[in-house]
Amino acid sequence: MVDLLLKAAFAVPMTGADDVIEDAAVTVRDGRIEFVGRACDLPDTSAASTVDLGHHILMPGLVNAHGHAAMTLLRGLADDADLQSWLREHIWPIEGQFVDASFVRTGTQLAMAEMLRTGTTLFSDMYFFPEETADAAIAAGMRCQIAFPVADFAGRWAASASECLSRGLDLFDRYRDEALVQVAFGPHAVYTVDDAHLKKILTYANELDAPIHIHIQENAAEIDECLKARGERPIATLKRLGLLGPNLQTVHATILNDQDIQDLAEAGASVVHCPHSNLKLGSGIARINDLKAAGVNVAIGTDGAASNNALDMFAETRQANLLSRSGAEGGSSMSAFDTLHMATLGGARALGLEEFTGSLEAGKWADIIAVDTAVPGMTPMFDPISQLVHSTAGRFVTDVWIAGRRCLRAGQLTTLHPGKLREEALHWQALIKGADSH
Amino acid sequence: MVDLLLKAAFAVPMTGADDVIEDAAVTVRDGRIEFVGRACDLPDTSAASTVDLGHHILMPGLVNAHGHAAMTLLRGLADDADLQSWLREHIWPIEGQFVDASFVRTGTQLAMAEMLRTGTTLFSDMYFFPEETADAAIAAGMRCQIAFPVADFAGRWAASASECLSRGLDLFDRYRDEALVQVAFGPHAVYTVDDAHLKKILTYANELDAPIHIHIQENAAEIDECLKARGERPIATLKRLGLLGPNLQTVHATILNDQDIQDLAEAGASVVHCPHSNLKLGSGIARINDLKAAGVNVAIGTDGAASNNALDMFAETRQANLLSRSGAEGGSSMSAFDTLHMATLGGARALGLEEFTGSLEAGKWADIIAVDTAVPGMTPMFDPISQLVHSTAGRFVTDVWIAGRRCLRAGQLTTLHPGKLREEALHWQALIKGADSH
Repeated sequence: MVDLLLKAAFAVPMTGADDVIEDAAVTVRDGRIEFVGRACDLPDTSAASTVDLGHHILMPGLVNAHGHAAMTLLRGLADDADLQSWLREHIWPIEGQFVDASFVRTGTQLAMAEMLRTGTTLFSDMYFFPEETADAAIAAGMRCQIAFPVADFAGRWAASASECLSRGLDLFDRYRDEALVQVAFGPHAVYTVDDAHLKKILTYANELDAPIHIHIQENAAEIDECLKARGERPIATLKRLGLLGPNLQTVHATILNDQDIQDLAEAGASVVHCPHSNLKLGSGIARINDLKAAGVNVAIGTDGAASNNALDMFAETRQANLLSRSGAEGGSSMSAFDTLHMATLGGARALGLEEFTGSLEAGKWADIIAVDTAVPGMTPMFDPISQLVHSTAGRFVTDVWIAGRRCLRAGQLTTLHPGKLREEALHWQALIKGADSH
Repeated sequence: MVDLLLKAAFAVPMTGADDVIEDAAVTVRDGRIEFVGRACDLPDTSAASTVDLGHHILMPGLVNAHGHAAMTLLRGLADDADLQSWLREHIWPIEGQFVDASFVRTGTQLAMAEMLRTGTTLFSDMYFFPEETADAAIAAGMRCQIAFPVADFAGRWAASASECLSRGLDLFDRYRDEALVQVAFGPHAVYTVDDAHLKKILTYANELDAPIHIHIQENAAEIDECLKARGERPIATLKRLGLLGPNLQTVHATILNDQDIQDLAEAGASVVHCPHSNLKLGSGIARINDLKAAGVNVAIGTDGAASNNALDMFAETRQANLLSRSGAEGGSSMSAFDTLHMATLGGARALGLEEFTGSLEAGKWADIIAVDTAVPGMTPMFDPISQLVHSTAGRFVTDVWIAGRRCLRAGQLTTLHPGKLREEALHWQALIKGADSH
């Protein structure tokens, strides 16, 4: 007997560009997928619970490979400001004044409410008080990678890079037996962490076989600054120090030259593409087509709501596909399947979790979402995969299971309380509005 | 006594960048707005009907200034094909085989279902059997401009440009007394209508004081072709023939040189920006910042669902703002207000209807939408205007009134029947799928 049997008109397992299963069934036992295929091929099994979704598409949950969930409380703060005044006059002062454990917990819950409703099952996060993020995710049944922040400057979570590291190392013990949480090193960027600490991070990461997650070459100014300070580009710094490897997740990589691309490809590092954030902050359009052509694994991330302002991975995926056709990325544009692959298996691979999630396959975690197609915005449908990419399908996600647990049921969150969350968020909104004088 | 009193936490009337009314009230009498302001300033009036929306934003309905509504039945057809094979191997053959009055009616209804749900109250349309589009709009209570198509080649609606013109001229009489419908001339493009017919259109348009709506300089190939055929760029053709004037709506204008921009500005012509379609078809990123700087009125359109694939004007508006920051448009990027202005008053002005719609002002048509802010994706909110632009607010539209008639009530369509529409659309889907062999 299986725990759960899901039926739907379609399944898009993300195992191949032509793999669309009609009249599909998926079974789940002990939080893992046991069967994916046509309902008529389902072995004769009884199920403790059966959900027949009708005209839906079942597919793997999306992987949001970069964000700062708690910053959802800063959504829309100074939207029209340019990057420097946005950071220096608004975001950093407000963070310095308000960010604490409670801020991070509420902000993370608010972010998860939006991510679950739009089909994300696994998110990578980099923010202060990462234990609050992890605990909130566990409570909500969401999967996460917490890339604990390491930076030279004092923050509200830790006063120095060394203190960040020592607090962060504790997290590996704390979440050792927690299947929903993966801990990673999160050096903020090459311009905020010195070489000594970057080397220390590499040593620890190798010992613990843990991933490293870092902002890199987000905009041209960052590269100029590094050239001045170190006489090399940020990716060259990572290469020189030995960080450039398969465990490295490089975020943004908006501004790349051919050498950068070759270095990323040779090292087997992943890139996390954040197309909306890159546009909103005026950073530019990343050379994703060229990265794909060079064989680099690319994932997709929303970045924080303060620079996006939505946490809808389907919208992000559509944008990745559209920008791939803009002429600004070089190379040949991506197919719909290639783009959706970035948002699922590409993300899982970047996080070192492709063995466990990112596709619907027997033995993987049961991280599954259902998208309604019986709505005007999804009608007609000639190709389920390109429809998912181009029709902003996040609006039509109705159900989400993570490790087999139903976190969204017919559009309603089962583990989070939007009403209560909204009240708490409005409390923070009032405080922040009072303090943000610009 | 007024017919309708609306109350909401906020109103964004689009009368100025700083105009956000808290605890707002709007009253409607005989399909027109009578009062917009703070509820406490409302004159002592009784209302036949009162709707208290709570934590919503009231704002003018969005103006979708370019589309082909019936093509919603081709949504997602050959998404991954390039422009030429998409048109020549898929869209045109399918249109040639299937487009008739019934196709246009169903496709238009499907399009309106999506547009109403995402806050559009007025759409401009260019497609065969425009009378079907207009009649469907009237039945659904939606406002539209039908730019009847004129092209040299034989279509299913008319066999020649002359027949297009004669059929189209009948429409002015047919809809003379219909407040919801405006008729415009829709010469397809400079490469599909010869100079003689363009001049004829100008003559008629001047006589009737009617707008002209035309695709122009959508991609580089179109310009090359015109240079070869006429020895000038398409905008120069329009200028030479005298069409470039305040009644002209130029659609796409993706590829512009400085002279084009100066010509558009001097003539007082409007540009309809279709950012998603331009990206999806690989046409490029239009120089909207430069157009705005030159004083050109810019509107926003979704284009047809076959090249988008969504008809969500909020998503389109967000994209317009983001691309404005991409570095590809030249000039300074747009504020959130400027972008939302394009989607409301800019559209109304392009269509020659700014006296009647595009903002919440006493005397204008009561074309009003309500956006819910009590949802995770709209929380917190520091600035209602930038929130509307950046947080993909189309998902959160709950109510729509057009000329005071409620066409969407708490997310439910009141004048269209999604279930029936879906059945009809699936019928077309099956036919088209059978015929589209690629």
